[in-house]
Amino acid sequence: MNKIEVCLTPELIHQYELPGKIVVAVDIFRATSCMVTGMAYGVKSIHPVATVEECKELGNKGMITAGERGGQKVDGFRIGNSPFEYMQDEFRNQSIAVSTTNGTKTILASTSADQVLIGAFLNIGALTDYLEQTRKDVVVHCAGWKGTVNMEDTLFAGALIEALANTHKTSGDSALIAHQLYESNKHDLLGIAKKSSHAIRLAGFGVDRDIAFCLSESLYSIVPEFQDGCLQTLS
Amino acid sequence: MNKIEVCLTPELIHQYELPGKIVVAVDIFRATSCMVTGMAYGVKSIHPVATVEECKELGNKGMITAGERGGQKVDGFRIGNSPFEYMQDEFRNQSIAVSTTNGTKTILASTSADQVLIGAFLNIGALTDYLEQTRKDVVVHCAGWKGTVNMEDTLFAGALIEALANTHKTSGDSALIAHQLYESNKHDLLGIAKKSSHAIRLAGFGVDRDIAFCLSESLYSIVPEFQDGCLQTLS
Repeated sequence: MNKIEVCLTPELIHQYELPGKIVVAVDIFRATSCMVTGMAYGVKSIHPVATVEECKELGNKGMITAGERGGQKVDGFRIGNSPFEYMQDEFRNQSIAVSTTNGTKTILASTSADQVLIGAFLNIGALTDYLEQTRKDVVVHCAGWKGTVNMEDTLFAGALIEALANTHKTSGDSALIAHQLYESNKHDLLGIAKKSSHAIRLAGFGVDRDIAFCLSESLYSIVPEFQDGCLQTLS
Repeated sequence: MNKIEVCLTPELIHQYELPGKIVVAVDIFRATSCMVTGMAYGVKSIHPVATVEECKELGNKGMITAGERGGQKVDGFRIGNSPFEYMQDEFRNQSIAVSTTNGTKTILASTSADQVLIGAFLNIGALTDYLEQTRKDVVVHCAGWKGTVNMEDTLFAGALIEALANTHKTSGDSALIAHQLYESNKHDLLGIAKKSSHAIRLAGFGVDRDIAFCLSESLYSIVPEFQDGCLQTLS
């Protein structure tokens, strides 16, 4: 059996040994759900950057600009941070530069791992297949919210633990807690997610449908990998 | 309604505004369970200190020395970190100097709060009564294990949230997660706690009975308060 660990927020990632392992970076509401959706709709590459300025620079070079601050679209960006905005035929074979409050930072803080994959409920099936075949230890790196732990990323970690039960054994209490949380809420993910701080925050922006969509399991069969500064679909 | 928040490890305590609030410091296996037991057995005061050296200095001044490193008694200390070691008639009206891996640090990192109380399953009833009457916002500060999140402290946080349901409302997803975790495991705390990293670690030292004892609810009716460098029973 391989090991699966869970890092509940980027502020604790220094506690984990990443070399030799695969990191699954996750920001369910909504960065990694957007990335998976975009790649599934034929986007060629997605470039996560830390700052609004870097994103705009890449925009000047012809990329589509995307992202949010505090949950809302950044002024001057082409799109915000809703997966529905990524479902555009004209984005096929284009590159997107994206900067978000939490998701981008999580990906960039994971790069000492052997491989960084992008996880969401939307691609959990494909991700599970890949991790089962690869047989490496896994760290689920939850983006949380501004350094704090969040419900939806922890639920996803628990779902992935359950999905990988044949090949990966939990290591550490955060993984045990995430698994328990998923186990006792898996028949009503939307119910518990709606109580989360993030869902309540987003509801204020009228994006309820994003919440439900981001909890849909295995709509897409692609797994984005972060390498050399950008996400591409794992071949 | 007042608020109740949960900080899952001392490494995240900087995310919480402590002034104006009451911190409940908790290290179920076993520092705060020992402290509550000792005070219930008539110990006059308990002095948590960060280092083994400070502890020995206080020992030279007549205090009983207590504590562990890596789960085992420190060489030269009078007692280790088992609640059963605190049940001694000769400790009545004595002072104890204690240094432990996680619990001590948690208490010392909480002092910007209005009040720092010591929580354990052993005194959860008395603690609940006090917090219900005092009507201040509460932060449960979990000691975890060397900076990582642990199962048993998170379970306690969930138990306290449930107990305070009439006066305190959860704030933040860590509190929501802790509550969910307790809700779905409250009929078999020992079962889930035995799967925790800490219980597995302690089992290696032959202290299984400590685990079961530390999960016993409301054996004692005292609430220790940390003030001016030491714990005394709240009058």
